[in-house]
Amino acid sequence: MGLKLYDLAGAEPDRRFSPYCWRTKLALMHKGLAFDTVPWRFTDKDAIAFSGQGRVPVIIDGDHVVFDSWTIATYLEDAYPDRPSLFGGAGGRGVTRFVNAWADGVLVGGIVRLIVTDILAHLHEKDRAYFRETREKRFGATLETITADRETNVVAFRKTLEPVRTMVAAQPYFGGELPAYADYAVFGCFQWARCISPFPLLTKDDPVWAWRDSLLSAFDGFAGKALGYPL
Amino acid sequence: MGLKLYDLAGAEPDRRFSPYCWRTKLALMHKGLAFDTVPWRFTDKDAIAFSGQGRVPVIIDGDHVVFDSWTIATYLEDAYPDRPSLFGGAGGRGVTRFVNAWADGVLVGGIVRLIVTDILAHLHEKDRAYFRETREKRFGATLETITADRETNVVAFRKTLEPVRTMVAAQPYFGGELPAYADYAVFGCFQWARCISPFPLLTKDDPVWAWRDSLLSAFDGFAGKALGYPL
Repeated sequence: MGLKLYDLAGAEPDRRFSPYCWRTKLALMHKGLAFDTVPWRFTDKDAIAFSGQGRVPVIIDGDHVVFDSWTIATYLEDAYPDRPSLFGGAGGRGVTRFVNAWADGVLVGGIVRLIVTDILAHLHEKDRAYFRETREKRFGATLETITADRETNVVAFRKTLEPVRTMVAAQPYFGGELPAYADYAVFGCFQWARCISPFPLLTKDDPVWAWRDSLLSAFDGFAGKALGYPL
Repeated sequence: MGLKLYDLAGAEPDRRFSPYCWRTKLALMHKGLAFDTVPWRFTDKDAIAFSGQGRVPVIIDGDHVVFDSWTIATYLEDAYPDRPSLFGGAGGRGVTRFVNAWADGVLVGGIVRLIVTDILAHLHEKDRAYFRETREKRFGATLETITADRETNVVAFRKTLEPVRTMVAAQPYFGGELPAYADYAVFGCFQWARCISPFPLLTKDDPVWAWRDSLLSAFDGFAGKALGYPL
């Protein structure tokens, strides 16, 4: 049995938008591992109950069931040491963990406030009430209130990308000359938005746009071909 | 001739507070390289004119003159490959560059607004007018205006440390199990404040405090023994 990934989907089965699942998909591509994806919705808790928890990504690799994108990345690195490294060694793994945390907090936290109504609009009908209820509880506000000021809020969001701009002025990727898992950890956040929202996060003259473009083209355009908005 | 470092000093020659010089000093300790420091003030441009520019850190290592803390770190890594690695390989070096950029923007940029009047107060008399003029021009405000709201601003500053907290909940250092240059890049910013300002950036119950403490103790307490405030 080949490697299998449970991958968050919207109303259309091909709309795959989870930032965490994108990290895993690019990690699998980086390792050159073939995999099949299973479209999964937020309320399909039973379908992944075998993993002992209720979120994706979940992978099944032979006898191994692994969940959580960071845990999956370290699993893949250790299980397939002869494939291209995701971290470039122990030092890279340590520092990448910080980048992953920065992306989770600053990027996921920043982007969700810009696109959460677009996420709702693209969900399978069976997921909508669940999504609205859990997210409105988390934010303490209606989804519509959260995105109402997004034209203003995106300006502040773009400022938080300044360290990425400084970096890409000096080298092509977080990984240095070649992409590594730190790139995928950050890219997954932009790909999340691109797959589900027509709201432009980046301007074309932003160096972050060019960096993202090169990852959209990576692996024969794997991410660039995904169903989404051409932003 | 041993390795020599030009190191920013305040009125007292032993008050060494540059965040960038601290990065270099810890990189030298990490590599196990003996070095002497030369106290240097902002207006001592002539003393480092041989480097072709006007800022510290500058190191002289035999025939090599190197300036800029990041360039020095990569020089040391490449010139002393048999000593403990600062980056843990090419992957680590790439990702560390992002951490360095994050520290420069978010930490240096955040901290300076909390301590800049304390810096002024500790400078050698010959540096004060230069410092006030260049910094007030940069900020477009008087130094006193910048720090006036620091009790409020420190709350926002502490929030920007959240990715560090997430990381230290999972592993001891940016480098993983052991400190690496990414740790020094971030630590240098806190040490800058500690050496020159009585204003508390961190609370004792913050996990970032404990991480910083372990670096104050590193190398036989090298940074912890520096002239500064016991914060």
